[in-house]
Amino acid sequence: MTEQDSQDGKDQVAGKQGDRDEDEFLPRRELLDQIDAAIEAGDAQRLNELLEPMHAADIADIIERLTPAERRGFLQLYSGEIDGEILSEIDESIREEVLEQLPREVLAEAVREMDSDDVVDLIEDLDEPEREEILAALDDSDRVAVQQSLAYPEYSAGRLMQSEVVTAPEHWTVGEAIDFLRSEEWLPEQFYHIILVDPRRHPIGYVTLGRLLAARRDVLLRDLTEDSFRTISAFAEEGDVAYAFNQYHLISAPVVDADDRLVGVITIDDAMAVLDEEHEEDILRLAGVGDESSLSDTVPQTVRQRVPWLATNILTALAAASVIAIFEDEIAKLVALAVLMPIVASMGGNAGTQTLTVVVRGLATRDLTSSNTMRVIRRETIVGLLNGAIFGLIMGIVTWLWFGDPGLSMVIGMAMIINLFVAAFAGILVPLALNRLGADPALASGTFVTMVTDVVGFFAFLGLAALVLL
Amino acid sequence: MTEQDSQDGKDQVAGKQGDRDEDEFLPRRELLDQIDAAIEAGDAQRLNELLEPMHAADIADIIERLTPAERRGFLQLYSGEIDGEILSEIDESIREEVLEQLPREVLAEAVREMDSDDVVDLIEDLDEPEREEILAALDDSDRVAVQQSLAYPEYSAGRLMQSEVVTAPEHWTVGEAIDFLRSEEWLPEQFYHIILVDPRRHPIGYVTLGRLLAARRDVLLRDLTEDSFRTISAFAEEGDVAYAFNQYHLISAPVVDADDRLVGVITIDDAMAVLDEEHEEDILRLAGVGDESSLSDTVPQTVRQRVPWLATNILTALAAASVIAIFEDEIAKLVALAVLMPIVASMGGNAGTQTLTVVVRGLATRDLTSSNTMRVIRRETIVGLLNGAIFGLIMGIVTWLWFGDPGLSMVIGMAMIINLFVAAFAGILVPLALNRLGADPALASGTFVTMVTDVVGFFAFLGLAALVLL
Repeated sequence: MTEQDSQDGKDQVAGKQGDRDEDEFLPRRELLDQIDAAIEAGDAQRLNELLEPMHAADIADIIERLTPAERRGFLQLYSGEIDGEILSEIDESIREEVLEQLPREVLAEAVREMDSDDVVDLIEDLDEPEREEILAALDDSDRVAVQQSLAYPEYSAGRLMQSEVVTAPEHWTVGEAIDFLRSEEWLPEQFYHIILVDPRRHPIGYVTLGRLLAARRDVLLRDLTEDSFRTISAFAEEGDVAYAFNQYHLISAPVVDADDRLVGVITIDDAMAVLDEEHEEDILRLAGVGDESSLSDTVPQTVRQRVPWLATNILTALAAASVIAIFEDEIAKLVALAVLMPIVASMGGNAGTQTLTVVVRGLATRDLTSSNTMRVIRRETIVGLLNGAIFGLIMGIVTWLWFGDPGLSMVIGMAMIINLFVAAFAGILVPLALNRLGADPALASGTFVTMVTDVVGFFAFLGLAALVLL
Repeated sequence: MTEQDSQDGKDQVAGKQGDRDEDEFLPRRELLDQIDAAIEAGDAQRLNELLEPMHAADIADIIERLTPAERRGFLQLYSGEIDGEILSEIDESIREEVLEQLPREVLAEAVREMDSDDVVDLIEDLDEPEREEILAALDDSDRVAVQQSLAYPEYSAGRLMQSEVVTAPEHWTVGEAIDFLRSEEWLPEQFYHIILVDPRRHPIGYVTLGRLLAARRDVLLRDLTEDSFRTISAFAEEGDVAYAFNQYHLISAPVVDADDRLVGVITIDDAMAVLDEEHEEDILRLAGVGDESSLSDTVPQTVRQRVPWLATNILTALAAASVIAIFEDEIAKLVALAVLMPIVASMGGNAGTQTLTVVVRGLATRDLTSSNTMRVIRRETIVGLLNGAIFGLIMGIVTWLWFGDPGLSMVIGMAMIINLFVAAFAGILVPLALNRLGADPALASGTFVTMVTDVVGFFAFLGLAALVLL
């Protein structure tokens, strides 16, 4: 097996010898070319051969990277092979498109294989009729589990959990637990703990499988429970769940309803996926790209995602322009003002973005709390003043050398200090205010902060020039 | 236990009833005030009582949030209680500071408790003398394991792995494995698989503990191995390791040396931490904040991290200003040009940042590969042209209404189309080029792209105006 592994080079995460493109992606490119060829030739058998050794997640990636037209061709040839594993790996952005093209019986077969949390993930964004169709394909017990999960709010732990749980009464011994596991026909694909429950199904602790295996048969399960045990409310936000897994190194955690009764379990791989998505959202929102954007989106989808941000930005740019318009006479008298003014605004925008990003990130990681907010505000404003002084001095000297006008160089230096100080304030207060109002600080902070630094930058520079020079 | 849990409210990830600050952080704030009071009063016993019920990760967070002065006071009272768990949770940014203040015997005791991967993480950034001191405190076998790990490159799988591994010969049965685990004095804190090795210690498969528990004693381990099995080269980059865990839903994976021999194991919680760090780096680098920045950094540290980016930005801003300077005469004749020109530049900067972020993110998640690069370039440039047309038209109308000058409104419309088209090109080509050169695309792309959009924005608008209007 080891030899085979090194031959196809796919089952090892390799050390890099050189350029990433060479090592990691070139085989994929060749493969994709071959897949393209098979699709064009309508050669289902060849396509099967090519995809057979691949992991479901990689097949899903390939489906995502095809154009919509290629994808139709692909699904005509391959749809019979689409199983629950592939289906649960397919990105949201193309999921509906793929589901529509799957034969009903393939879809029904696929969802029957899936864990309840994957089914929930698959159908939660579907319209009612399609959702019902998929629910109808499930066994009764699975359907009930999925419906219970869907009853919890979107992005809650209840939606994330799987209802397949391995439990044991608190009075059991290790031997009883092992005998139970051996006799049980059905067990979840992956489980890492046995959850101890009292007669009313309240979870009261858990035992890792490692400790279970290492203990003698007559040891009581309750003597093996872990200190790390903590339950998750089914109503907890998925972001908080991901945080808890990362912070406390959890592997799996029981989910309880409002009465503290066990209703499911969340495993770390799902929490890791949430962490990854939340990061993606943060980074895309900060840049004003729709947080559902994907590389496989079409041109119209992409335009639709980007226009709102650009439209907001044109409004803020117009606000800044109208500040400049106030000082038209001054600029006409001293054109150097027009040459220099974007520098002041741009430096403010950059300094503001720095502070903003640190604050947005601190809120996302829960590092910024009410206990250290004052300290961070103090630090950022002092840093703003210092950076203002540093770059004000630099621009003062540059301006003097360039235009030979000491008054102008004094004005730009002072405007820089003012704007970098204000940038620090805006960079911290705007996201904090949005957060307090319940909005996502990553979403709109950038526009507000840039508007502030543009308006203040132009106003401080041109206003000071009008006062001092003209 | 359940009652106790709901009382202190700490061992459940709660559903949110209202504002995040109220629910989650207010208790911490009160706690921190009490801790502050205990530090000031020099009351070690009170401090112990307050921290006793807390998770090591939360204690580490509290230590991070203190000011350096408070931290000294804290450590004088509490250093005796600092154990391996707390130590491995403490953020890099303050780690050296904390280590210096710990009594030698406390430090030695703490590192002896830690897994080898945590010791590696702790000492890899220390200077030689301190590193040797900690190594000397370890048992011989632990020291060898740590030294072997340190021999691998920074940010490699070899640094991330723990050397504590549970293995079994491939010919063992389930019963033999369970007897072995019961008889073994020492087992890792957390393990999820038994790795099957051949006589030369090549890993050839693994068995999950769940399947081991569910099987009869006479079943052969090799009949229970998982399809998901894949090994990781000790030389693989930690980013690739995190990607593999996330992509293939791995829980733990064996690490092999250059001869394919088992040298350690990486577990998902470490991979999750790497994923989190990589995201943090991306987001901070995109904003030009040092990627090692932390909320607990002091003012001088923060200034030092931010100045390089601002210094780069002042150079690019000067480049843009010198483009404006070419057109001083035109601006003096038509001051409306000065009023409108920042709008063109600003829209280009925003559109460029949108494309840039999508590309940087695509590279980070491995969604953007050579197989779909051309498609993304095509999409982004078409989107750039369309957005240019949309916002060129809008600004044309606004300009006409504002200045009543159809020539000027035609000029700004055309300049907008040109700049948003160029922004798309720069937004995609700059990070791709940096990536190909082996640089981190997140690190410097922003500056380059903004310089391009500023220079092109001012040049296109003012140049067209000079040609058409004057």
